[in-house]
Amino acid sequence: MKFTAQDIATIIDGTVDGDKNTIIKNVSKIDDSAPETLAFLANTNYTHHIYTTQASVVLVKNDFTPDKPLQCTLIRVKDPYTAIATLLNAYAEMQPQKVGIENPSYMAKSATIGDDIYLGAFAYIGENVTIGNNVKIYPNTYIGDNTVIGDNCIIYAGVKVYPQSHIGQNCIIHAGAVLGSDGFGFAPTKDGSYKKIAQIGNVKLEDNVEIGANTTIDCATMGSTVIKQGVKLDNLVQIAHNVVIGENTVIASQSGVAGSTKVGSNCIFAGQVGVAGHLKIGNHTTLAAQAGIMSDVDENQTLFGTPAMDVKQAFRIEAVKRKLPDLRRDLNSLSKKIKSLDLDL
Amino acid sequence: MKFTAQDIATIIDGTVDGDKNTIIKNVSKIDDSAPETLAFLANTNYTHHIYTTQASVVLVKNDFTPDKPLQCTLIRVKDPYTAIATLLNAYAEMQPQKVGIENPSYMAKSATIGDDIYLGAFAYIGENVTIGNNVKIYPNTYIGDNTVIGDNCIIYAGVKVYPQSHIGQNCIIHAGAVLGSDGFGFAPTKDGSYKKIAQIGNVKLEDNVEIGANTTIDCATMGSTVIKQGVKLDNLVQIAHNVVIGENTVIASQSGVAGSTKVGSNCIFAGQVGVAGHLKIGNHTTLAAQAGIMSDVDENQTLFGTPAMDVKQAFRIEAVKRKLPDLRRDLNSLSKKIKSLDLDL
Amino acid sequence: MKFTAQDIATIIDGTVDGDKNTIIKNVSKIDDSAPETLAFLANTNYTHHIYTTQASVVLVKNDFTPDKPLQCTLIRVKDPYTAIATLLNAYAEMQPQKVGIENPSYMAKSATIGDDIYLGAFAYIGENVTIGNNVKIYPNTYIGDNTVIGDNCIIYAGVKVYPQSHIGQNCIIHAGAVLGSDGFGFAPTKDGSYKKIAQIGNVKLEDNVEIGANTTIDCATMGSTVIKQGVKLDNLVQIAHNVVIGENTVIASQSGVAGSTKVGSNCIFAGQVGVAGHLKIGNHTTLAAQAGIMSDVDENQTLFGTPAMDVKQAFRIEAVKRKLPDLRRDLNSLSKKIKSLDLDL
Repeated sequence: MKFTAQDIATIIDGTVDGDKNTIIKNVSKIDDSAPETLAFLANTNYTHHIYTTQASVVLVKNDFTPDKPLQCTLIRVKDPYTAIATLLNAYAEMQPQKVGIENPSYMAKSATIGDDIYLGAFAYIGENVTIGNNVKIYPNTYIGDNTVIGDNCIIYAGVKVYPQSHIGQNCIIHAGAVLGSDGFGFAPTKDGSYKKIAQIGNVKLEDNVEIGANTTIDCATMGSTVIKQGVKLDNLVQIAHNVVIGENTVIASQSGVAGSTKVGSNCIFAGQVGVAGHLKIGNHTTLAAQAGIMSDVDENQTLFGTPAMDVKQAFRIEAVKRKLPDLRRDLNSLSKKIKSLDLDL
Repeated sequence: MKFTAQDIATIIDGTVDGDKNTIIKNVSKIDDSAPETLAFLANTNYTHHIYTTQASVVLVKNDFTPDKPLQCTLIRVKDPYTAIATLLNAYAEMQPQKVGIENPSYMAKSATIGDDIYLGAFAYIGENVTIGNNVKIYPNTYIGDNTVIGDNCIIYAGVKVYPQSHIGQNCIIHAGAVLGSDGFGFAPTKDGSYKKIAQIGNVKLEDNVEIGANTTIDCATMGSTVIKQGVKLDNLVQIAHNVVIGENTVIASQSGVAGSTKVGSNCIFAGQVGVAGHLKIGNHTTLAAQAGIMSDVDENQTLFGTPAMDVKQAFRIEAVKRKLPDLRRDLNSLSKKIKSLDLDL
Repeated sequence: MKFTAQDIATIIDGTVDGDKNTIIKNVSKIDDSAPETLAFLANTNYTHHIYTTQASVVLVKNDFTPDKPLQCTLIRVKDPYTAIATLLNAYAEMQPQKVGIENPSYMAKSATIGDDIYLGAFAYIGENVTIGNNVKIYPNTYIGDNTVIGDNCIIYAGVKVYPQSHIGQNCIIHAGAVLGSDGFGFAPTKDGSYKKIAQIGNVKLEDNVEIGANTTIDCATMGSTVIKQGVKLDNLVQIAHNVVIGENTVIASQSGVAGSTKVGSNCIFAGQVGVAGHLKIGNHTTLAAQAGIMSDVDENQTLFGTPAMDVKQAFRIEAVKRKLPDLRRDLNSLSKKIKSLDLDL
């Protein structure tokens, strides 16, 4: 990686204030920088660091006016956060891309693959699998029979996809994720043991879905467990059988959604949230970290706690709860006072 | 898949009410159906859909009496839920089964395998491993040295079984599960660092156990971590070293049981439950989702919350807790009243 | 395994009280023992078992004085717990060690490896990977391009290490763990969908780190997610992008630390803890199981609950909370009394 300040400015639609030929070889933080790096100043709490930073180039807002002399070259942009995101993506796209088929890998003769794919060593492609163009399948991955994978997907190392799964276009599945494992369905018997109920459905991911590392999505008992387009699931998330996750919903790490629950679109679940089974969660719902949802949720709610309630109400209650020993003491003291009054009556 | 209504009725011990030769090629939901499918009506809230469903055949209870004319053929059964479970299992058993040894796979010469096994490509069988008859080991699976696997087990893709593990008969282990990883055992040292304590025990699964995707079960420090017969663990469950899970206990996703805890038989843990170490949990215990168990639990309890308590008590407390701001206000107003009374005394 | 009592005593710096040639072939628990085994007596609640144990040899404290005749040979040591840890480690070291390169495995020509390594079948070593001496890489493992692994590391089966990772010396990574998956970073767009922000940083493990099975550690957006020396992470832990975990901090199973949070050194997190993003957790912090941390934490705190608070305060509050229905009733009864007083005024 080696760019001039002007190269960077061109990518992010900025203007150079200083030497356009300043060389950048890496990125750094403004308060933990090195020469020949690019830093950015987006949070004004960090402004004082710009006068001492060793970074050669700093991204700043268009209206930044230094109070003192600067050692660094500036690149002025409308919004440094957006600029850095653009830059990261541009950098990522410049990296060499894996392509070709490594050996040994395993592909059933009945499988069909598109153009420009990468198939890592020890990847396994089952019978009748269909893989689109420009798909990357990293090493040690298992794609079960009859699975369909759309164009431009990236399946990272060690992903396990059970048979009959459908994966849309532009999906990213991170290492160790499991798609299509059996739903947790058992019928109790008279002797206290459980009889397995076969799970013959599948998992369906629509387009532009990203699935985190070691996340698990069970197949449906019948039909499909559906992850709609634009959904982003973080690491170690559990999606149970027959669940539907609505468009553009994002779910943070270690959250779980139990069987047959329908989650609306554009929801945000923070980490370690739990949602019980057979519920409906409305669109634009926000669930705070560790929330536990035990009943249906209307649209546009922001909930906290277990059992979850409106976040503002929850914090009003929490404020009183934290003073419960005082409240108990106040009540006892009132009670004594009343008793003494009683004597007077 | 192509059956007549009579074929289905025979499998599930039902009687056809209508054309016995009606063709079924798939299953559907009664309210989201298509021609040539089989739907079922078990929940009476859905009864009205039977008059408009496009499903060709609908499973109903023996005593179902339509109010209006029906387009569909009926199959009458004692219990539609049981019938559908029977049907799902029959369907699953009809699917072609994997058998044979795919290449490349790795089997130590000292390993012994039974008849009719499936060994997927990139599966690894270590030294002195013993595998029973009719076992299916999917691709990219690792079976460590000296492990024993009983008859009729299914080990899905990417499962990792550490050396010395014992797996009984008829067990199912889902993709990505790990059996036998080191228990989390460290001795603090004077400088604040930790010294690892070797974990030389193993994991033992009895018969008819099912383990979910990406679930982890640590080996014992000495002896065995034991999962007794009929236990069902969902996805992403953590079982720590030296734990014993009693017969027919079922544990839902993302729950964890800490070291040396003994869980009784026929317990039900909902999702995201946490149980501390060195505890005894009695038989027939039910733990609500996200419960946190910090002390021993007697038999036949149903617990909720952290620290967990009896579920009825918990909900009585929760009801008052939700009115805490009102309670505080009432107390303040009483307090004022008393003060004014004081003046009069 | 076959030792004499004297062999054992030599390893753990103890003295034999009885027949020095007593044969031991295995270990057992003092209350669940068998002949030719070694048990230990560390907890005085178990003392009575020593008179009936079938173990041939029992480890006891130096000052142990039996009340009755014993069948077993004793080995007297300063501290039985430490002795057993020493013994376990000695036993583990005596086991045959894997060494050599199994086939088929995959190593890029540009990769360099040290002496005495074990590379299991179906392990994948990418371009420009550097692996130190005496490293063990178990089957079905993926080591991405440009990764560096220090001496004496053990990488168990099915571990996935993304490109550019740095792993120090003497690290142990358990089966199924994922290092370097993309941080969960997305920018919302006007239509409600999310645009991925490329994550170009890496994961850095310092020396003597142990990572549990199926644990996930995301790479940094830029720079490194850092796990400092001596850190021990249990199974199914989530560490998000740009997090720093301080030296010798131990984190139990199913805990999660959200993005950019800095955790101090020598902290102890119990199981299922959640820490929000962009926080600072001071050194020597202890977090109780299922604690939810929503703001910065000073040094030397012990916290409980969600939102977390000082554990002693939390239990004082919990005690009153458990009596909330009584408190409500007391208040109502007082209120009635006041009303009746009012009438008299």
